[in-house]
Amino acid sequence: MTNSSPLPATGAWLPGDEPGQRQFFTFATDRRFALDSGIALADVTVAYETWGHLDADASNAVLLCHAWTGDSHAAGPAGRGHQAPGWWDETVGPGKPIDTDKYFVVCANVLGGCQGSTGPASTHPLDGQPYGSRFPVVTIRDMVRAQARLSGFLGVRRWLSVVGGSLGGMQALEWAVMYPRRIRSLVAVATCMQATAQQIAWGAIGRRTIRLDPKWQGGDYYGAPPGEGPGEGLEIARMVAQVTFRSDNVFTDRFGRELADKAAVGDTIGMWQRFEVERYLEYHGRKLAARFDTNSYLSISKAMDLHDVARGRGNLARAMSRVTAPTLAVGIWSDMLYPDYQQQQIHEMVAANGVSSEYLEIDSPHGHDAFLINGDQLAGPLERFLGSALKSDS
Amino acid sequence: MTNSSPLPATGAWLPGDEPGQRQFFTFATDRRFALDSGIALADVTVAYETWGHLDADASNAVLLCHAWTGDSHAAGPAGRGHQAPGWWDETVGPGKPIDTDKYFVVCANVLGGCQGSTGPASTHPLDGQPYGSRFPVVTIRDMVRAQARLSGFLGVRRWLSVVGGSLGGMQALEWAVMYPRRIRSLVAVATCMQATAQQIAWGAIGRRTIRLDPKWQGGDYYGAPPGEGPGEGLEIARMVAQVTFRSDNVFTDRFGRELADKAAVGDTIGMWQRFEVERYLEYHGRKLAARFDTNSYLSISKAMDLHDVARGRGNLARAMSRVTAPTLAVGIWSDMLYPDYQQQQIHEMVAANGVSSEYLEIDSPHGHDAFLINGDQLAGPLERFLGSALKSDS
Repeated sequence: MTNSSPLPATGAWLPGDEPGQRQFFTFATDRRFALDSGIALADVTVAYETWGHLDADASNAVLLCHAWTGDSHAAGPAGRGHQAPGWWDETVGPGKPIDTDKYFVVCANVLGGCQGSTGPASTHPLDGQPYGSRFPVVTIRDMVRAQARLSGFLGVRRWLSVVGGSLGGMQALEWAVMYPRRIRSLVAVATCMQATAQQIAWGAIGRRTIRLDPKWQGGDYYGAPPGEGPGEGLEIARMVAQVTFRSDNVFTDRFGRELADKAAVGDTIGMWQRFEVERYLEYHGRKLAARFDTNSYLSISKAMDLHDVARGRGNLARAMSRVTAPTLAVGIWSDMLYPDYQQQQIHEMVAANGVSSEYLEIDSPHGHDAFLINGDQLAGPLERFLGSALKSDS
Repeated sequence: MTNSSPLPATGAWLPGDEPGQRQFFTFATDRRFALDSGIALADVTVAYETWGHLDADASNAVLLCHAWTGDSHAAGPAGRGHQAPGWWDETVGPGKPIDTDKYFVVCANVLGGCQGSTGPASTHPLDGQPYGSRFPVVTIRDMVRAQARLSGFLGVRRWLSVVGGSLGGMQALEWAVMYPRRIRSLVAVATCMQATAQQIAWGAIGRRTIRLDPKWQGGDYYGAPPGEGPGEGLEIARMVAQVTFRSDNVFTDRFGRELADKAAVGDTIGMWQRFEVERYLEYHGRKLAARFDTNSYLSISKAMDLHDVARGRGNLARAMSRVTAPTLAVGIWSDMLYPDYQQQQIHEMVAANGVSSEYLEIDSPHGHDAFLINGDQLAGPLERFLGSALKSDS
């Protein structure tokens, strides 16, 4: 870990920064975009990337929905405007399971995000200052409504598939429930229909940690100089998440009880002398703080806790009875954050309505992050599933 | 939850406060008590409580070792000097599984604690000021060495049993390894021989949260007025622990997705509007902050992460080969913090040396805290185990 270069005050991408592969779609410039909270936004921008070509009949479009700290850069190398390679680069590309020679693939940064879509770091149209603490709570449904606007703009009336893991899976599920006629298939990986109390607990702890950071300044820190942003609160919030993303077994195998800070001979044991696992968690926390906006982290965390496909729809069975898209639900046995019973429930509720559904279990010790780490196990089933969606009636 | 009365700056019990049932033993007044860290303490006090009477041959003494935020008050009601009833009041008392009509029961506050034993809130003998940031790192072995001094003072040359859960189980295991001739049996509940990387991760996150709290002041906050102590950092650290002490299933059953802060009609959803599970975690966090000292929380947390019966003893098998005490190892299937494989390992390693050992699984959905919640399941086996230890050669 290096503490030498100060973190930026915020890791948000802002207009004027290198766009990289991002494209932008702006809507609600004349009237307001109503959110679930009751508040409305104007001048909403969605940053997105595309790969491959849309067929003449617009029948080969696949929407990828990214996870918590992801963005539109699902595939392709790191480079100008993109700090890291695509988050699903092994799965998306020419000849890959989501084959961009066959499919027109789209990935959009979520509403509330910080990589080009409207979020807390964006400029409020009324005064030209960052939203900061004024940014309203957004929900998964709000994110999906923004993506639906983008679909219209792109000429995609019906997605061949909407695919996502974790937060992305929540969006994919809401697509299937909100717009059943606009999706032909659904892939929901390591996700849930409703956030559980334990999931809310983890989210709430991360938010409280950020609130404790004096540099967060109630959410209005955007004028702070480098190094004076709320990096430490975000770092610790990410440390909490990182433990829940992985597993006991893998931590034991990888870190055991190794010390990161070796004591010189004769030194005493110190309170802040770190084990290797602490160094690892701090490294990931700082890395996130350098590339992500703290308020976006809060915003998306709250959206995940509010996620409940049953809300306002009577009950879970009634909500899920709206799903008509053939479904591939994917679980990971070692996932402590979104345990596999939750994806089995998705499969069972879809199948209970006579809709074609499969359940796939990823056999990995890596925990929740296995949906990114063990793409190899998802590759074959995903390729076949998309292929048969393409062959089915459109 | 009430925010109305300010928390004390520290929840430490200090000399001059109501002693309640506490008794005090002070040692190392003439020479220094050497710690594993290489640092030595002078004027070490151990606060302890006792129940029942020591036999003429001192053969009926049972040592209870408390968990992280416990203290010497294992049994008996709340009252002057004791904010809460005994932490194992259902298990310890006349006619109870640890029958104080039969046994002389002792429980001592750990070294580094804040309920009467020497810890960070205690007075440094050189300058009469609280140790604060000067308090050295202590280990489980240091805690046990202090208890061994107390044993001598009490005239107990050999404990009939040393019994503990979680942190208490770590102490009981170290008793069995450090002083095999001084204990006749061992009860280790929901504990481990070595802290794992995941356990260290949870501990480290809590410590970082406390360090982030500006009111912690690097550990030297003892002069702060009420409400100006590091309560918020401790509250959040406790929230992390509380999730790991319980279970997904029980959180779902108990809290589901209920809101604690109901919005008035027409109100928008707010970032800090809490679900019931958040209210619960905050309540427990604040409750702890009102009765516990933040630096003691750090101190004990670090001791647990440093816990490794193999350290300096070659390897785990060699360390455990020192155990000659018949052993009852107890696990809880729903324990996500100290998973039951760890207690099965204790049982297997003791049995591998030809020492009598039993493994008991508590069938409870309550997670780690089941060792306190489901005393009923432990009662019979514990009573029989102690009874047969009493009948065995002494």
